[in-house]
Amino acid sequence: MATATFEYYHANRDKFLEGFKDFLRIPSISTLAEHKADIRRAAEFLAAELRGMGMEGVEILEGKEGQHPLVYAEWLKADGKPTLLIYGHYDVQPPDPLEEWISPPFEPDIRNDNIYARGAVDDKGQTYLLLKAVEGFLKAEGKLPINVKFLIEGEEEVGGEHIEQYVCSRPERLQATAALVCDTEMFAPELPTITTGIRGLVYTELEARAAKQDLHSGVYGGAAANPMQALAEIVTGLKGPDGKIRIPGFYKRVKKPSKAELAAWKKLPFNEKKYLKNEIGGTALTGEKGYSVLERTWARPTLEVHGFRGGFTGEGAKTVIPAVSTAKISMRLVPDMNPKEVYKQYTSYVKKITPKGITTKIRLLSSAPATVVSTESPFVADAAQAMEQVFHKKTVYMRSGGSIPVVGQIQDCLKIPCVMMGFGLPDDNLHAPNEKFHLPNFYRGIEAVGRYLELLGQ
Amino acid sequence: MATATFEYYHANRDKFLEGFKDFLRIPSISTLAEHKADIRRAAEFLAAELRGMGMEGVEILEGKEGQHPLVYAEWLKADGKPTLLIYGHYDVQPPDPLEEWISPPFEPDIRNDNIYARGAVDDKGQTYLLLKAVEGFLKAEGKLPINVKFLIEGEEEVGGEHIEQYVCSRPERLQATAALVCDTEMFAPELPTITTGIRGLVYTELEARAAKQDLHSGVYGGAAANPMQALAEIVTGLKGPDGKIRIPGFYKRVKKPSKAELAAWKKLPFNEKKYLKNEIGGTALTGEKGYSVLERTWARPTLEVHGFRGGFTGEGAKTVIPAVSTAKISMRLVPDMNPKEVYKQYTSYVKKITPKGITTKIRLLSSAPATVVSTESPFVADAAQAMEQVFHKKTVYMRSGGSIPVVGQIQDCLKIPCVMMGFGLPDDNLHAPNEKFHLPNFYRGIEAVGRYLELLGQ
Repeated sequence: MATATFEYYHANRDKFLEGFKDFLRIPSISTLAEHKADIRRAAEFLAAELRGMGMEGVEILEGKEGQHPLVYAEWLKADGKPTLLIYGHYDVQPPDPLEEWISPPFEPDIRNDNIYARGAVDDKGQTYLLLKAVEGFLKAEGKLPINVKFLIEGEEEVGGEHIEQYVCSRPERLQATAALVCDTEMFAPELPTITTGIRGLVYTELEARAAKQDLHSGVYGGAAANPMQALAEIVTGLKGPDGKIRIPGFYKRVKKPSKAELAAWKKLPFNEKKYLKNEIGGTALTGEKGYSVLERTWARPTLEVHGFRGGFTGEGAKTVIPAVSTAKISMRLVPDMNPKEVYKQYTSYVKKITPKGITTKIRLLSSAPATVVSTESPFVADAAQAMEQVFHKKTVYMRSGGSIPVVGQIQDCLKIPCVMMGFGLPDDNLHAPNEKFHLPNFYRGIEAVGRYLELLGQ
Repeated sequence: MATATFEYYHANRDKFLEGFKDFLRIPSISTLAEHKADIRRAAEFLAAELRGMGMEGVEILEGKEGQHPLVYAEWLKADGKPTLLIYGHYDVQPPDPLEEWISPPFEPDIRNDNIYARGAVDDKGQTYLLLKAVEGFLKAEGKLPINVKFLIEGEEEVGGEHIEQYVCSRPERLQATAALVCDTEMFAPELPTITTGIRGLVYTELEARAAKQDLHSGVYGGAAANPMQALAEIVTGLKGPDGKIRIPGFYKRVKKPSKAELAAWKKLPFNEKKYLKNEIGGTALTGEKGYSVLERTWARPTLEVHGFRGGFTGEGAKTVIPAVSTAKISMRLVPDMNPKEVYKQYTSYVKKITPKGITTKIRLLSSAPATVVSTESPFVADAAQAMEQVFHKKTVYMRSGGSIPVVGQIQDCLKIPCVMMGFGLPDDNLHAPNEKFHLPNFYRGIEAVGRYLELLGQ
């Protein structure tokens, strides 16, 4: 690749790392209102970086009241060349449970070639490497091989609607030939990977209410309905012990992966026992019978409960029947499920199985359809080649069980292909304590993205 | 009753109220380690009161490491008269949810003849009135009509073992003719009531563990076991939608109330609709079919889940499969169930219904058998008469669904009858926000206990 840019990447490794650490120190947790100022600081940090590297039209785009800003920047002087819309997100998941972190989540710490911090891989590291890849060309050569637009959001972890509203209003400014999203992972260490499909999501909060106030379980136990018990019964009713979701009509639109896709997945280096032991650290896997782990997590819809609020959870014993309790319940969707339809099926089934004496109320917190990207696209092929050149191995294609709503919005509203290059590793502790990013992948990510821009410009 | 004592009660109403308020201001929450110093302050407050009124041998009895102290006092100069062992407790439940209190839980506030504070009725108010009843005789007449011993504990709300260890070591000091426990309620306002039975308790903490750490529900949903889901399934498995507890052998030893008892309960002024509307404020009652509300809450065993810890319960959406979660689950027992046997049945059934991929661990937090007191005892008859004289109504007998472990310990270890006079009201918000004590009942409680001492001395 271009020698000057390549040399710039190498000469500035320490500087890149320091900048990355500064970015990680901002606790930009999008789901917690008390971190609103940190969200703004993270957006301003990126805007300053983009301006400093020579991007133009840098702007912090405000949304509606309560929405987190988007950061936009462009460089459009490569006449006749394609335009790549580059996406990342600067917000992160909450760090709890805090006590399980070895080093504090917002004080980046390097151990064994890994950098540990909340957002290290998801997605601050993978957003920051995009900036550094582009910076290399601008600083070393004064120009880019193609036209580039950045659009970076601050509501990915909370399913906020700002980016959807903006992307789907189809502004002139977002016109591009293809999009690059860097928010996924590699199938295995040293194995360059492009993600071709992601699951959708319907995330809800289910409130159960019984009495006008908390009751003593001695005095009222046996006569008063218990909302906590009701939520347990509803959660149990939603999914059978066989892993099948019991909501009527739920599986109706599920589209199977192609035979070629299934055959390719079988060739991936995957060992169930090692996955259980090393990645999960559990005693047995669960899920639907008749499907492999990769099918279950990539191509089958699932339902999980994430937490129950209410009642007594402190030390010791409190004999309370809570008046009200809440459960966080989400479903992962696959093509061609419709989130609106699923939400409707879910709410009507919950009403149906709500025990007597209990009143339930459901709030939709986030919603996105699943997406599949065609491997036929030349933009995918160039990305695969760029990764191969940096990792010196053949690039594989996988799907992801997670949800990146923007991928569907870009494909559906902007009508351009969306390429997902990812540099995370399966053991990076995404959304968990001790999240990390493997530093060699941070640097190789910069080179692979740089190489991709070059290939697109040829 | 004795005129001088009676006059003392009346002349000192304001002083009694101020002392009561001082007692309520001490946040002596036994279940929270950070309130250890407040527990000590409450014990010292009582010791000072007992000394001040002229009781002898006042002593704060230390337990083992981590146990809360007992407070003991005696007056034994009524030669040839019976000795009454008087019990109360100075510890209180945690006040959460704090935001639902109209006035702060540890700043007593009087509204409409009720005093609002955590512990107002359970059991600081009913403990303090015992002291004031005895104080009246000592201050006004310089002597008591019978011999009196006080034993007041600080671990009632947490099921601590200090009092059991002390009572069941059968110290010389606790020898008495009968015991008086003042920690129950009246069946209805203005209806003097003696409680003749209380349910037992087995309170447990059930931990479910799956992975070595929290997992992303997108990436692992469909393959990784979810401890939160597992707890929901276990809770659902423990109790059917018909209210029947499914633990094998659970009902084996359940003893039915006598026909006379059942007939008396039917005569109590009880209206299911009003109970549902005014006391519970819900839409429907639950519980076992074929039993009345009073039978279900007084004479049938029950099982409740009090809270689930783990996962994400904050604002917004976090897509986590927690590594570990905990549920607080308790059972109320009736005669002749054996707490040890029930705990064994419960643990082995939980193991049996634990879903695959999940490891469960159970901790027993508290345990006590149910107790029934005979209405034939002359000590019960005198108590009924004393209450009738103060309330000017016939005393009724009821049972209570709650658990007061000391009653069983006193009957079983000291071999003396235990009389439960109570002055709380059904709407006193026991264990709930806005706990209160009806002030007229505080003053009538003092008089009724004073009258009881006189009757026992005759």
